Amino acid sequence: MVDYVHAIDEGDYERWPTFFTEDGHYQVTGRENLARGWVAGMLLCDNRDMMVDRIYSLRQVNVWEPHTYRHVIGPTQVLEVGMDASGATARFTARTQTNYLCVRTMHNGEQKLFSTGRYLDDIVFEGPPGGDVPKLRSRMVIADSNQIDTLLVIPI
Amino acid sequence: MVDYVHAIDEGDYERWPTFFTEDGHYQVTGRENLARGWVAGMLLCDNRDMMVDRIYSLRQVNVWEPHTYRHVIGPTQVLEVGMDASGATARFTARTQTNYLCVRTMHNGEQKLFSTGRYLDDIVFEGPPGGDVPKLRSRMVIADSNQIDTLLVIPI
Amino acid sequence: MVDYVHAIDEGDYERWPTFFTEDGHYQVTGRENLARGWVAGMLLCDNRDMMVDRIYSLRQVNVWEPHTYRHVIGPTQVLEVGMDASGATARFTARTQTNYLCVRTMHNGEQKLFSTGRYLDDIVFEGPPGGDVPKLRSRMVIADSNQIDTLLVIPI
Repeated sequence: MVDYVHAIDEGDYERWPTFFTEDGHYQVTGRENLARGWVAGMLLCDNRDMMVDRIYSLRQVNVWEPHTYRHVIGPTQVLEVGMDASGATARFTARTQTNYLCVRTMHNGEQKLFSTGRYLDDIVFEGPPGGDVPKLRSRMVIADSNQIDTLLVIPI
Repeated sequence: MVDYVHAIDEGDYERWPTFFTEDGHYQVTGRENLARGWVAGMLLCDNRDMMVDRIYSLRQVNVWEPHTYRHVIGPTQVLEVGMDASGATARFTARTQTNYLCVRTMHNGEQKLFSTGRYLDDIVFEGPPGGDVPKLRSRMVIADSNQIDTLLVIPI
Repeated sequence: MVDYVHAIDEGDYERWPTFFTEDGHYQVTGRENLARGWVAGMLLCDNRDMMVDRIYSLRQVNVWEPHTYRHVIGPTQVLEVGMDASGATARFTARTQTNYLCVRTMHNGEQKLFSTGRYLDDIVFEGPPGGDVPKLRSRMVIADSNQIDTLLVIPI
């Protein structure tokens, strides 16, 4: 959780896809949309290659005004823990939620409360026993307001 | 701490009284008021039934414009731990403080830094040994600004 | 981390220098400045006496409009742990980073998102084994925006 936000906040955008499994899913949606059962979100990547592409585009296409984020996240609530026995090795899993607040700073120093909401995460521990690391199988970013959708360049 | 804020932020207001003991005390006040020794606060419930009533009213009376909260809380500082031996079973107690920031989102997506401040809590662990859960005997919400008082519908 | 922010947020400014070692270093700078390699920051104290002086001035000189801060900090990321063997007793050390958000409240209740950024800390554990406490050898406050520099009275 903490490594993810520092990677984004310090502009190490290339590290962002590495927090996900290869078939990892990243979606930004609004709480109203979600409550109404609308599938369409503001941003969707349904595997890690799409995330790599997105960061590549972000670095190449400079039509957006430079800005940075700062996330402050609250404590993580573990909703459920489990075991995934589908692969060669059984792996621990967890479903968690974490409140976030993201402030955007423009190049001229102007700051704005950009987005608040909740990360709803599906996590799996990958790697050899003792050396396993948590990876996101799915991160759903549920923003409290839809007003960010046209401004979303950097992932939240 | 984390369960409390998610219950409110996700609109599960009926869960709010369940975080308190039966004779639990909830008060919202301003830091200026508190510094001057003024007892009157912006909101006071001095037992759990009053909290249940408050949520009941909130659900029935729809004169307020729909909105939601998002809390981001910092780490909790434990100020004191103790033991309450007044009942049949001795129970652990704790006094803690936790900084909070609460953002309000209106139905149209407009967001506002609604309140910041500090939770000053008196906690007791209730239930059988090994299965005991922390409950609030008292939560004093000390808001940094008094400007929220006329807008306070949902508990902070 | 949590004690530091409560000391400042509750106005116990005299406690602020006590979080540092005697030769402790405190600096507030902007991320742009840092990225460009500019050494000059918005505020610099390079030992604890300078911090004590700063708080003394803050208490005496009342030309500033009274205000308070509220910090919400995220979880702390430990970047490196080590051992300092330069003194009589070997001491544990740590380098950490912690995101912060600081809201300023004026005397009339007006609130403003004052500063966001990152604490980059160099910590050493001082005192007898078992009774040692973490002290800041260096805290660099890297603010996301430079727009606070003329307003910085209370340390962040």
